[in-house]
Amino acid sequence: MQLTNLVAGLPASVPFVGPEAQERARGREFRARIGANESVFGPSPKALKAMQDAAAGCWMYADPENHDLRHSLATLHGTEPGNIVVGEGIDGLLGYLVRMIVEPGARVVTSLGAYPTFNFHVAGYGGELVTVPYRDDFEDLDALIAAARESGARLVYIANPDNPMGTFHSAETVEAAIARLPAGCLMVLDEAYIECAPERPCGIDTSNASVIRMRTFSKVHGMAGARVGYAIGHERLIGSFNKIRNHFGMCRISQVGALASLGDKAHLENVIARIEHARRRIAAIAASNGLCALPSAANFVAIDCGRDGTFARKVLEGLIARDVFVRMPFVAPQDRCIRVSAGTDSDLDIFERVLPEALGEASDVSG
Amino acid sequence: MQLTNLVAGLPASVPFVGPEAQERARGREFRARIGANESVFGPSPKALKAMQDAAAGCWMYADPENHDLRHSLATLHGTEPGNIVVGEGIDGLLGYLVRMIVEPGARVVTSLGAYPTFNFHVAGYGGELVTVPYRDDFEDLDALIAAARESGARLVYIANPDNPMGTFHSAETVEAAIARLPAGCLMVLDEAYIECAPERPCGIDTSNASVIRMRTFSKVHGMAGARVGYAIGHERLIGSFNKIRNHFGMCRISQVGALASLGDKAHLENVIARIEHARRRIAAIAASNGLCALPSAANFVAIDCGRDGTFARKVLEGLIARDVFVRMPFVAPQDRCIRVSAGTDSDLDIFERVLPEALGEASDVSG
Repeated sequence: MQLTNLVAGLPASVPFVGPEAQERARGREFRARIGANESVFGPSPKALKAMQDAAAGCWMYADPENHDLRHSLATLHGTEPGNIVVGEGIDGLLGYLVRMIVEPGARVVTSLGAYPTFNFHVAGYGGELVTVPYRDDFEDLDALIAAARESGARLVYIANPDNPMGTFHSAETVEAAIARLPAGCLMVLDEAYIECAPERPCGIDTSNASVIRMRTFSKVHGMAGARVGYAIGHERLIGSFNKIRNHFGMCRISQVGALASLGDKAHLENVIARIEHARRRIAAIAASNGLCALPSAANFVAIDCGRDGTFARKVLEGLIARDVFVRMPFVAPQDRCIRVSAGTDSDLDIFERVLPEALGEASDVSG
Repeated sequence: MQLTNLVAGLPASVPFVGPEAQERARGREFRARIGANESVFGPSPKALKAMQDAAAGCWMYADPENHDLRHSLATLHGTEPGNIVVGEGIDGLLGYLVRMIVEPGARVVTSLGAYPTFNFHVAGYGGELVTVPYRDDFEDLDALIAAARESGARLVYIANPDNPMGTFHSAETVEAAIARLPAGCLMVLDEAYIECAPERPCGIDTSNASVIRMRTFSKVHGMAGARVGYAIGHERLIGSFNKIRNHFGMCRISQVGALASLGDKAHLENVIARIEHARRRIAAIAASNGLCALPSAANFVAIDCGRDGTFARKVLEGLIARDVFVRMPFVAPQDRCIRVSAGTDSDLDIFERVLPEALGEASDVSG
């Protein structure tokens, strides 16, 4: 076999190690799974029933045009179905998008320490990543746009609300950034957590071909394992996905579940309320340990451990040793934090109990 | 936005139009869905129950290492887990494989009229397709290997059993072809239908890095809509998928279902027996209409309509107009056939009833 030069030169590293791999290595299950920003509150009961009912029909391929789901999403967002492409989670759609836009040597702008899976795709297609530091734990939109202009970038990635910090820019601020994009540069706006934000954009303008928005059923819809994401944008860009996407790539059961979940607004509102409760409780737990939680617009909270990345990693390791799965930012200065997903009260009871031990141990070791 | 030159130059065409799109266009559902080689016999009851039980847990991402499924598959095939990669159906895995091997201008060999989705991926990565005619409705292994040698191909695609013709080469014949591969050329052996073949390879040699085998839960396992495929090969090649694949791309429910399906050998044997029954019945229906069915080693039968592609297309259209979803080969001379998937007796009752009408109508029109 002969790999392409590009693929031969890629590292074997993976963006994330899953909690199951950690459990296998530890020989013990986690008691609280609050590390991957999954929705512990689960899928809508309507989605659950729809998926259970659909399972027997999984002998059939799913509709490759994703007709029903796209039409429902178009109604929800006030767009046309041609403005929406459904894919195998935002991760899958980011892969397609990068493939469409990035060729070897093309520049791509992102914040330093933002989403590793996006960076994985950029590297995978030979793009050159241009990184911009966070500013006060926010993605620095002005600096990102400036870097896009200076580097002649084809693509700039912004997550709003941000992951891993949970910070949020208003729709007005984001629109102003879009208006300042240099010609020929596309903004991919990862809005995976937008339903948790204090302000949800109402109505989406798809006339601007310079921006594409990514949404998902993995977060507040509680269906991460079902792998349903979608992108909203100009019909020309959206239509281009058809040139390359895996047309029969969607799980039939998952699509049926997503459609049903859209119809259960009460569940979504309930989940959002429980996320808000969990955010408050995580902040209170942090405060009672003398730590500061960053204000979050997402389904997780970054807790500033008050020292450097080495210290935060020790805290993280202490939590994992006590069977609490959490993650942390990869890059300084954000890596002074640990990132805790909104858990059930039972999850957070465990977190509350073990955090002081993990902190104490980390302080002892660090001296 | 600026697409890459490669993507900008791709056609908007899609490999297949799904039956749902046809139903929407017709404004009427099909009564028999026997066109996409799905398994109308459905998934294993054990897989069904496992998926229904797993649905509530779909808030969790699936294990990105696909540990349990890969280990079970390794046991089944007498290989190591490192010889197996799980992906979003064979279509998804073919996309990854082509991406790994094919760069713009690279030659890829396939039979003329073989799997369009493979060709879609090759075009999508800028490869140049070198095609070899079928010989007596079989993929011509000697000619494929010769073409690979002459063109300096990086990749040669062979489906065994073949789709769309249903013909089959023995393991011995295939092994002999593998042994004659030119240096630097990888054979991708699409064995989606292998469980239906008269001879199933026992034990797989993964020491040869020149061949990669694709298998699926979409056919005899009856889980096409669940999107679970896998590839078996040398650990170096298999390991390379980790450089580019969508690590969190698998549906959690589907993986659980696939694992349970592996444990239900009785269901598989039952499905295979029902496929054999359906193949015999399709052949008998063809014969009673004066047509000849090709011997099939897959879960479908190609029926030679006895004239040219134009005639066969009219027969196909007559069947579709009578609510029977079937497909046909795209290229002459194979397109003298229609391709009928193994249906239930009830499906085949309908097919039996309407085939004479469709044939009569096609003959009238064709004169």
